[in-house]
Amino acid sequence: MKIPRLTVVTLGVADLSKATTFYETVLATPPNNSFAGVTFIELPGTWLSLYPLAALAKDISPEVPLVHSGFSGVTLAHNARCRDDVIAIIERARSAGACVMKAPQETFWGGFSGYFADLDGHYWEVVWGPMFTFAENGELRLKDKG
Amino acid sequence: MKIPRLTVVTLGVADLSKATTFYETVLATPPNNSFAGVTFIELPGTWLSLYPLAALAKDISPEVPLVHSGFSGVTLAHNARCRDDVIAIIERARSAGACVMKAPQETFWGGFSGYFADLDGHYWEVVWGPMFTFAENGELRLKDKG
Repeated sequence: MKIPRLTVVTLGVADLSKATTFYETVLATPPNNSFAGVTFIELPGTWLSLYPLAALAKDISPEVPLVHSGFSGVTLAHNARCRDDVIAIIERARSAGACVMKAPQETFWGGFSGYFADLDGHYWEVVWGPMFTFAENGELRLKDKG
Repeated sequence: MKIPRLTVVTLGVADLSKATTFYETVLATPPNNSFAGVTFIELPGTWLSLYPLAALAKDISPEVPLVHSGFSGVTLAHNARCRDDVIAIIERARSAGACVMKAPQETFWGGFSGYFADLDGHYWEVVWGPMFTFAENGELRLKDKG
């Protein structure tokens, strides 16, 4: 009965084909289109899925509006292994059509971070931080404080 | 240089303390509050983090507005092991203060799913589906089609 895992993050998109191509390029991972109308990108840990925005809203409830404005209040992050990877990944996203919201730069907390918005305005932070490390399977970990 | 993993999903929240308590209850996972101003919930696979909405917007860019309306276009999902778990988790979220947007029900694609909105209106789907299974480490997998 526990819910110990976020299994899938779904992004509502205007053009499923374009969004799928964008993420295939940025994530360097082949998407799975074998389910009609939805793209699953089976990343380790938690999947990303892409689904037409109106269909996603309707799936939640008829009460959910089909439009949005302002800040969604959600960001996705990729923790990179070093500053150079932050720069390279943001550049790859830009080449694929993303809008760079914040060029990679030092942060007030001692990290190095940039943001891009995908084709539908969903925000990604690409970040390196000195307090983070990775488990053998690639999962993010906090360094021991001792 | 690959970006093979979504490491963190950050939700902007109005009240960090209330949101932290909500997710501690729903996820049954102790949050890590040792970083001033941000809550990390170190789930396996991909973490969830909670951060005040205005600070999150400002972190992206001064151009990002502090308000939002309509549908954010993002949903988070927990794939459950069975229908009864879907019902139990949605009920636990409701008890913790969530708004149930869609009561657990059969879906058109052969699954069983419900949605809730958290204290800040972020949507979660709790879902079981016959095409999904789990790896030993708990990661979501598609069943073999053969």
